[in-house]
Amino acid sequence: MKISNLRFVIIAPTAEVLKWQKAFAAVAPKVHLEEGPKVRQPETVDVLLLWNHPPGSLKPFSNAKLLYSLGAGVDHLMQDPELPKGIPICRIVDPLLSFSMSNYILFAILHFHRRWKKYVHDKENCIWDHDSFPERKIKIGILGLGTLGQDAAKKLQFMGFDVVGYSPSKKVLPGMTTYAEGEMNNFLSTINVLVCTVPYTPATRGLLALPVFEQLQHPACLINVARGKVQVEADILKALDKGLLEEAFLDVFETEPLPKDSLLWSHPKVEITPHIASVTNPQAGATQMLENVERLLRQTPLEHLVNSTKGY
Amino acid sequence: MKISNLRFVIIAPTAEVLKWQKAFAAVAPKVHLEEGPKVRQPETVDVLLLWNHPPGSLKPFSNAKLLYSLGAGVDHLMQDPELPKGIPICRIVDPLLSFSMSNYILFAILHFHRRWKKYVHDKENCIWDHDSFPERKIKIGILGLGTLGQDAAKKLQFMGFDVVGYSPSKKVLPGMTTYAEGEMNNFLSTINVLVCTVPYTPATRGLLALPVFEQLQHPACLINVARGKVQVEADILKALDKGLLEEAFLDVFETEPLPKDSLLWSHPKVEITPHIASVTNPQAGATQMLENVERLLRQTPLEHLVNSTKGY
Repeated sequence: MKISNLRFVIIAPTAEVLKWQKAFAAVAPKVHLEEGPKVRQPETVDVLLLWNHPPGSLKPFSNAKLLYSLGAGVDHLMQDPELPKGIPICRIVDPLLSFSMSNYILFAILHFHRRWKKYVHDKENCIWDHDSFPERKIKIGILGLGTLGQDAAKKLQFMGFDVVGYSPSKKVLPGMTTYAEGEMNNFLSTINVLVCTVPYTPATRGLLALPVFEQLQHPACLINVARGKVQVEADILKALDKGLLEEAFLDVFETEPLPKDSLLWSHPKVEITPHIASVTNPQAGATQMLENVERLLRQTPLEHLVNSTKGY
Repeated sequence: MKISNLRFVIIAPTAEVLKWQKAFAAVAPKVHLEEGPKVRQPETVDVLLLWNHPPGSLKPFSNAKLLYSLGAGVDHLMQDPELPKGIPICRIVDPLLSFSMSNYILFAILHFHRRWKKYVHDKENCIWDHDSFPERKIKIGILGLGTLGQDAAKKLQFMGFDVVGYSPSKKVLPGMTTYAEGEMNNFLSTINVLVCTVPYTPATRGLLALPVFEQLQHPACLINVARGKVQVEADILKALDKGLLEEAFLDVFETEPLPKDSLLWSHPKVEITPHIASVTNPQAGATQMLENVERLLRQTPLEHLVNSTKGY
């Protein structure tokens, strides 16, 4: 069996579909990437590329051999109660995703560390303040030590920062203190910059809320690059107004696009980006996916396989 | 001879004097740090701590054994035509200086790379743009591969960036292309982000001018953390308006404080900080300085000695 004999279907927002079709045309011109969910003879489709598919829409694809998430997260798959069982699920693990994610995190940290808003304000007002010490003292905590969290932690350490990490199962990282299940309070009470990179699961839903913010050292900064439903936006606003947080640097939101009437838009201590911390490069992703499909055909173990029980 | 028997005098702006006196009180309470240039019996003073001393004011210190620059640069000393000859000059080489400088440089690069101004503008206007690719493609050139330039180059490489370097004498850095004297044009024409970390000497005066900007790839960004007199501000403004530069991120200026009537203040493509990229930590500096004075007393070779012929 050859890859060009397989049927591939993508179910995703139109802008994504166009990007992936272009990437497939570039790296595998013989593979035709059909747009779903409505296709002829869905029962003969082999591989499904998915991003925010309508729940239940995968049922007709009764002989699919592989489900592929078009990004690092798979929460969009897991929330479909009718997700077909027993089919392997893989996700994109793009080295450029780590590059972009770690650099985004570092930018957000430096924005706080180097008091960037003060200097923007000073420029607008022609103020030359050479006397204030330009850096905030910070100790960084990475909440979630998966591929992306570990990459960021390692790079921040190399830049000279004091970094610790938390993950439910103990992770050992050279030269770094890490905390595990049962030690969340110790972790939070030692840091003033909290970087959230956890996957979205029932266990992390609404995790970033007042009880967490109350334990941080001051001045505190929250950076969330994970998923919006991990945060409670009403609590972030309360924490900013109470002084529990000094800055919130957010790439993800409970509802996306962020509604026009959200109070986050106009809050002076909030920074907003539209879920672009790390955008998958479709060409690199398509290449990786096709290599994995080759493994499926050769019946060798798949890479970047998702553990459906853990949900990531 | 003991350190506490030596006379130390500091000649610097008042805010600096207070910081260094506090640092000496903390790390060497037995050493009295007198403020100059007017002191009783200047001919018995042993060590001079200097930052922007009035030219000619060192003459009465006829038996000084060591001159110390209170920062990484010594151009403020070299521009005094009456600087006493034959006395060793040392400078502070603070590991925290590299930490701050490299993080400042990285922040400035990421500010450009990740189109930060676009996202600030979008927040102000409640715009959610998930479709534009969030990163500019960049290739970074470090002009000046001294202690600070090398540290930044190494860290940027570790973060995953494509980095090359230039220094008049060839420097070999693992995994990095470097250029030397006679290869400046090759260096400039391969990059679109130019980071200047050169010392200020007669050879670098006015170096950052139109002929340099014209050779960069587009869109180009200039970052200057060296000295203001290395740049020609009228040319930076011209280059921005012609589109030769897309952004100028400046920590140093021809005249400091930057005059209120400078057009840089209000230019939308210029970022300004008041010479704070890297501020010496007086306690670390005082400790290092006193260790060096111990070496002077033991007649062992001094560290961080300045080469007066090269001027850095």
